[in-house]
Amino acid sequence: MENLVDQFHFSWLSAFKEIGARVCLEMDELFKGKGYGKPLGKGAGGDTTLVLDRKAENAILGILERLHADGEQFTFISEEMGERKFGREDAVILADPVDGSNNAKYGIPFFSTALVMASGRKLSDAALGYIINIGTGDEFWAIKGAGAFKNGIRITTSDRTDLGMVNIEAASPRRDLQKAMPLLSCARKVRCLGSTALDLACLAAGATDALIVPSASRSFDFSAGWLIVKEAGGLLTDLAGNPLDNIPLGLERTTPFIGASNKTVLDKALQALGGCS
Amino acid sequence: MENLVDQFHFSWLSAFKEIGARVCLEMDELFKGKGYGKPLGKGAGGDTTLVLDRKAENAILGILERLHADGEQFTFISEEMGERKFGREDAVILADPVDGSNNAKYGIPFFSTALVMASGRKLSDAALGYIINIGTGDEFWAIKGAGAFKNGIRITTSDRTDLGMVNIEAASPRRDLQKAMPLLSCARKVRCLGSTALDLACLAAGATDALIVPSASRSFDFSAGWLIVKEAGGLLTDLAGNPLDNIPLGLERTTPFIGASNKTVLDKALQALGGCS
Repeated sequence: MENLVDQFHFSWLSAFKEIGARVCLEMDELFKGKGYGKPLGKGAGGDTTLVLDRKAENAILGILERLHADGEQFTFISEEMGERKFGREDAVILADPVDGSNNAKYGIPFFSTALVMASGRKLSDAALGYIINIGTGDEFWAIKGAGAFKNGIRITTSDRTDLGMVNIEAASPRRDLQKAMPLLSCARKVRCLGSTALDLACLAAGATDALIVPSASRSFDFSAGWLIVKEAGGLLTDLAGNPLDNIPLGLERTTPFIGASNKTVLDKALQALGGCS
Repeated sequence: MENLVDQFHFSWLSAFKEIGARVCLEMDELFKGKGYGKPLGKGAGGDTTLVLDRKAENAILGILERLHADGEQFTFISEEMGERKFGREDAVILADPVDGSNNAKYGIPFFSTALVMASGRKLSDAALGYIINIGTGDEFWAIKGAGAFKNGIRITTSDRTDLGMVNIEAASPRRDLQKAMPLLSCARKVRCLGSTALDLACLAAGATDALIVPSASRSFDFSAGWLIVKEAGGLLTDLAGNPLDNIPLGLERTTPFIGASNKTVLDKALQALGGCS
């Protein structure tokens, strides 16, 4: 484990935690005022950029610029501003400044900041994933090979083997609910919470059994969560059950996916998508 | 307004806020340990009683017993213990100790305590409604005729007129999603959050545009929220558009319902239930 988790990882974890604290502070200030929810135009990822997304991204950028001035080399990829080179292209920092912008904008207390540090441009290169629940301050993180943690305590996915609590992200309700209905119909309970990164954190921490994202998602939405779920013992695949390891890290929409707490639940979920058993 | 909001209401609001603080503390203690989620048998309302429900109810009961010893007369109706008389039957305190028990049990940070003080046995007798988000500490309350408040600041429902953010509670996913699908398909965004009381608080505060609960619900789930939504300018009806005023306050399941931020959204939602326009 000494080889996997060195000072380098902990320096970045420390930076991510500083970013998390800063974003929480910015959001707290923002929600006292009236500025949030005001569209600023399209972000690089295609979504309408909101004051809150811009504020969060600037908070992240400020800290990354300081790290670069101190000698760190990396390329920063973020939902709003796109890609910015800080010296190296093979080390990537990927950010979703506010995952669950609609919740933040409307006032549903379930949104987050998600950050990934990767040694290359594929999902399997993700080395450190970090997600913070901006409403509650809960922090989830994982280092490749070293496990997953919530607020410093190790977490594992649930060992339940049924489709008990099934979560969905429905970017386009009509299409996505229709597509996921065979699975949702088999579930004992269903949730649709509005932040993919936090959904994955919930799956990793054993709060849910499965997650389906029927629309093609962007890697900054799920890459931090992918590593945290994986390190907590869970699985993420595309809707045919193929691993996501070779998904490119970037701004483009890549793939729909399904997450599960263990292999038994994954098999049941994939089977259910073809009709309830 | 002097006639509507007197010291009596504020005494009860103060008691409800004390209960809210006490329940938050109990839950905080509980979640550090391992006891939550352990079934204790069936509650009076039919759900499996969990340690956390019992803990929350005991916290409420302790404060109500003290108030009764100080001279208050009322009947207490609660999800877990059923009905208990403290001197009078025409003044009712209705409680859902933990609304969103599954979220609390599994670890999804969206659950609440809901309390109502009513001058009789019908929903329209509700005089004071109180909901606290146990995860964030946000308090929502309304006094009949005096408006609705979140953390002491007046709230109103959204003046948006489209089916933007539509919320559903799906007690039985297969049946409820099927029933609500015509409405959900018309929505720009869909949420399924798992706490009816907090859903209603979100509607009252302008976070969502509509809420559908397709299964017959129990009044302790929605009576606090009914008053808060109404006082914030919103509407709650059954699925045919009839008001809920005469719904009895008690333990039995009464009616499915729909909530909307204003009349335009309500009409659109009711129409959508018969097929998207």
